[in-house]
Amino acid sequence: MNVLPKALQETIDALYALPGVGQRSAERYAYHLLRSDPVKASKIASALATLHQNVKYCPVTFALIDKKEELSPLYTNPKRDKKQIAVVEDAFDISAIEKTGQFTGTYHVLGGLLSPIDGISPESLHIPQLISRIKKDKASEVILAISSSVEGESTAHFIQSQLQSDKVTVSRLARGLPIGLDIEYADQITLSRAFEGRQIL
Amino acid sequence: MNVLPKALQETIDALYALPGVGQRSAERYAYHLLRSDPVKASKIASALATLHQNVKYCPVTFALIDKKEELSPLYTNPKRDKKQIAVVEDAFDISAIEKTGQFTGTYHVLGGLLSPIDGISPESLHIPQLISRIKKDKASEVILAISSSVEGESTAHFIQSQLQSDKVTVSRLARGLPIGLDIEYADQITLSRAFEGRQIL
Repeated sequence: MNVLPKALQETIDALYALPGVGQRSAERYAYHLLRSDPVKASKIASALATLHQNVKYCPVTFALIDKKEELSPLYTNPKRDKKQIAVVEDAFDISAIEKTGQFTGTYHVLGGLLSPIDGISPESLHIPQLISRIKKDKASEVILAISSSVEGESTAHFIQSQLQSDKVTVSRLARGLPIGLDIEYADQITLSRAFEGRQIL
Repeated sequence: MNVLPKALQETIDALYALPGVGQRSAERYAYHLLRSDPVKASKIASALATLHQNVKYCPVTFALIDKKEELSPLYTNPKRDKKQIAVVEDAFDISAIEKTGQFTGTYHVLGGLLSPIDGISPESLHIPQLISRIKKDKASEVILAISSSVEGESTAHFIQSQLQSDKVTVSRLARGLPIGLDIEYADQITLSRAFEGRQIL
């Protein structure tokens, strides 16, 4: 016999599907919502009910945009420099970079990283679209803002090799010690990258 | 300018209201749902949309029950012994106890613990209902399954004092070493309770 009311059990089961949420957390969320003002639960409900139908990908940059928009506002905004393209793995990386307030160019979302083991080939990423866009927008710099994992490195190498014949400059984000990290605790690879990339003062 | 589409930002803001969920977790949940099958998001949406209207409190035990039920099935089930009443702080404690599969009596949810500082007086808990229920069901034992915090202890004392004139036995869950805990790591209070409650073999 089920101890909890059906509606509550269904809520727990549904929340349990979120990444990193276990049985106990799902119970805690559900119970919290049940004890709170119903407005809280209905806000989540209505946001999730319309999430998929109100969000789409920009056909040029592949950033996430409102259904009613044609292109990403980060691309159409005249203040953004179309000649500078930051290539990122997924759409959420854009918000992280935008929070720095330092980049005024445009973005291009790959939608993943090359990984032959997982069957992710250049064709399944948005690399052809990047290449045609570079020509169309007469881009002068492509900044590879990709993480430095094995997949990230090989994706960066692949894109670089594809762009060798073009006049575009290819750069990538600096690797080095993160702010606040003691050298004592830095891992070997980070430390050796920090040495390679040392800057003359 | 907002970087994320409105629907996505609304989802993040709504999920951010869950207990223990920060900005980053809310983003992670929202993005995961956006990348997953829309069925996942709509399952959570429909569960939360109907949560409050499909769940109510049992008027006798104050356990959470389906809207269409009159009383908690844990109370009406003839296999459950109405003469044994486990008193718990909130409705979720019931599922924890039921998982042990050891208790065959019925439950009574207090809806909180006495806490003069927070303005929780005996009247705001379901203590009067417990007392009248003990008489009605001719209960023989009241098991205080309440945590051993300061509020828990004072609530237990209060209930015990209220039932002194009745013929009902009042017991409470054993305090002692949790299974798997090394004596070395046990806190002082737990260890002294374990001494007090030692059992003759």
